[in-house]
Amino acid sequence: MAIAKGYAATDASKPLAPFTFERREPNADDVVISIKYCGVCHSDIHTVRNEWKNAVYPIVPGHEIVGVVTAVGSEVTQFKVGDRVGVGCFVDSCVGCATRDFDNEQYMPGLVGTYNSVEADGKTATQGGYSDSIVVKEGYVMSIPDNLPLDAAAPLLCAGITLYSPLRHWNAGPGKKVAIVGMGGLGHMGVKLGAAMGADITVLSQSLSKKEDGLKLGAKAYYATSDAATFDKLAGAFDLIICTVSAEIDWNAYLKLLKVNGSMVLVGIPEEAIPVHAFSLVPGRKSLSGSMIGSIKETQEMLDFCGKHDIVSEIELIDIQDINAAYERVLKSDVRYRFVIDIASLAE
Amino acid sequence: MAIAKGYAATDASKPLAPFTFERREPNADDVVISIKYCGVCHSDIHTVRNEWKNAVYPIVPGHEIVGVVTAVGSEVTQFKVGDRVGVGCFVDSCVGCATRDFDNEQYMPGLVGTYNSVEADGKTATQGGYSDSIVVKEGYVMSIPDNLPLDAAAPLLCAGITLYSPLRHWNAGPGKKVAIVGMGGLGHMGVKLGAAMGADITVLSQSLSKKEDGLKLGAKAYYATSDAATFDKLAGAFDLIICTVSAEIDWNAYLKLLKVNGSMVLVGIPEEAIPVHAFSLVPGRKSLSGSMIGSIKETQEMLDFCGKHDIVSEIELIDIQDINAAYERVLKSDVRYRFVIDIASLAE
Repeated sequence: MAIAKGYAATDASKPLAPFTFERREPNADDVVISIKYCGVCHSDIHTVRNEWKNAVYPIVPGHEIVGVVTAVGSEVTQFKVGDRVGVGCFVDSCVGCATRDFDNEQYMPGLVGTYNSVEADGKTATQGGYSDSIVVKEGYVMSIPDNLPLDAAAPLLCAGITLYSPLRHWNAGPGKKVAIVGMGGLGHMGVKLGAAMGADITVLSQSLSKKEDGLKLGAKAYYATSDAATFDKLAGAFDLIICTVSAEIDWNAYLKLLKVNGSMVLVGIPEEAIPVHAFSLVPGRKSLSGSMIGSIKETQEMLDFCGKHDIVSEIELIDIQDINAAYERVLKSDVRYRFVIDIASLAE
Repeated sequence: MAIAKGYAATDASKPLAPFTFERREPNADDVVISIKYCGVCHSDIHTVRNEWKNAVYPIVPGHEIVGVVTAVGSEVTQFKVGDRVGVGCFVDSCVGCATRDFDNEQYMPGLVGTYNSVEADGKTATQGGYSDSIVVKEGYVMSIPDNLPLDAAAPLLCAGITLYSPLRHWNAGPGKKVAIVGMGGLGHMGVKLGAAMGADITVLSQSLSKKEDGLKLGAKAYYATSDAATFDKLAGAFDLIICTVSAEIDWNAYLKLLKVNGSMVLVGIPEEAIPVHAFSLVPGRKSLSGSMIGSIKETQEMLDFCGKHDIVSEIELIDIQDINAAYERVLKSDVRYRFVIDIASLAE
């Protein structure tokens, strides 16, 4: 077994700290990856602080992983040593099912998370990308297009696919008016991806402080939701609204912004139940829906799309020693637009 | 102008009573209909009792109208005297728009309700089918297939299309598992229509009191929602759930019954906001949606489908003098499954 170095949480209230642990012995279908960069997702914070009540410590978080292949098992056919690869939010799926559902595996009960989960063997804890290496089944490893810088590509593995999947599923494209609610790590990817798909993108953000960025990244319009006039002006304007915020907002006011047959899709998880009035849905055949990351197949499709359109995340590169300070800034939305850990700093 | 006889509400607290009024002079594009039967919809009660806060008295309710054509305007091409026809929930639409949206007119702001609304002239109040005649623009009149009895066909114009439209929109058919929540006037039509489309229909009703009927009308299974075991047994079972009840139910428990990518569609209007947990939608790409009646085009399609499959409503025929007692029974769900007024009784 190989020794890995990383940063882990050992309980809900302590900061992340250096941590050494064993990676499992690679099987014939495994790929061994030297991790170069790992994005920082809000889910990492929810998990290590046990806000989702499912933490099993120690936890090495991180599921926006990019690196380079250092070894492959004898049955691996898609990857070779030296390949630039990525790993996202899960490392196994459909465990216990007869077949892997390539289109919906992210929604299957057998999903094995990249961290804070248990491998298919039923006993080994998974540990994530705030570390220098990882061993992952070939079928859960993706290729990073050559033209994309590895550091800024890391957030594509969670933030990118989280927006790409609903944009595709709800047919964002030419002639479609799409609103992205929230201009953060998720939202700014929605702007880039939606614009590249040809949709007409509007950002709905609390204030206009990031308006210049939004328009530069591809939005056609940018409105402040703190201004009540926004909701009058945009009534019935959108085919699709993707909501990246988990704050309590006036949900029925947002549903009024949909056209007939429009959908509002949650990709964040607000803590409280959302009070939806039937009158917000029935008289326009509207929907309130949810979406969660994407399948491996769709994530590779998204990476290839990003390669073709030269899309990566806007990032702030940090050393791993700064992770706890970075978490505080994420909680204040003080990052434009995603922190990425330079894993080389682990060796310092 | 022709004099019509009917029953009207003159204020929110009084029973319906005999009422004589004028129908407008037919225009060149109008059809004059001698009404034979009219279904009794829960919306009639909501409206005449001003529960939707929009009542303008006097109101002659009724929007499940069937009858026979007695005259047509000079420009009418689709109907002739003697034709068996129906009129549903609206008699004009897209008023003020450049074009009529044949697929979505029921959701357009220019909709003119069959009663308690104002004609395109901006001044004439519309009055519904609890009366002996009506004058309706040709484009809002539908043909009743010859093989369907007029009385039992009446409820197709509202209850029928209210279920047909979402069943079609969400692709009910062979291989699809569909739950109908509530076994009343709407629900029993959902069972008949969904089964005729080839979907696998389950009824979810408070009790098993109508189980025999449900299975006879085409359901494959019938469960009591008062039994908590129902929700365990049916977890993840349905592609589509159509909810016909407007009572407060445990919405998140019903959302758990959906498969990945499943939709729960409201066709009733619960008074209180529905508290939806994001965790009920996000981890299975599920949707909570609404649907309202259907377009004229789709309603005619539904009538033709019912003709082909010999589908009508299960009805209890009443004299118009019994309408106030019938309302009380509707409120107690004491009808199998729809009251229909025999308009001949008006002459008594």
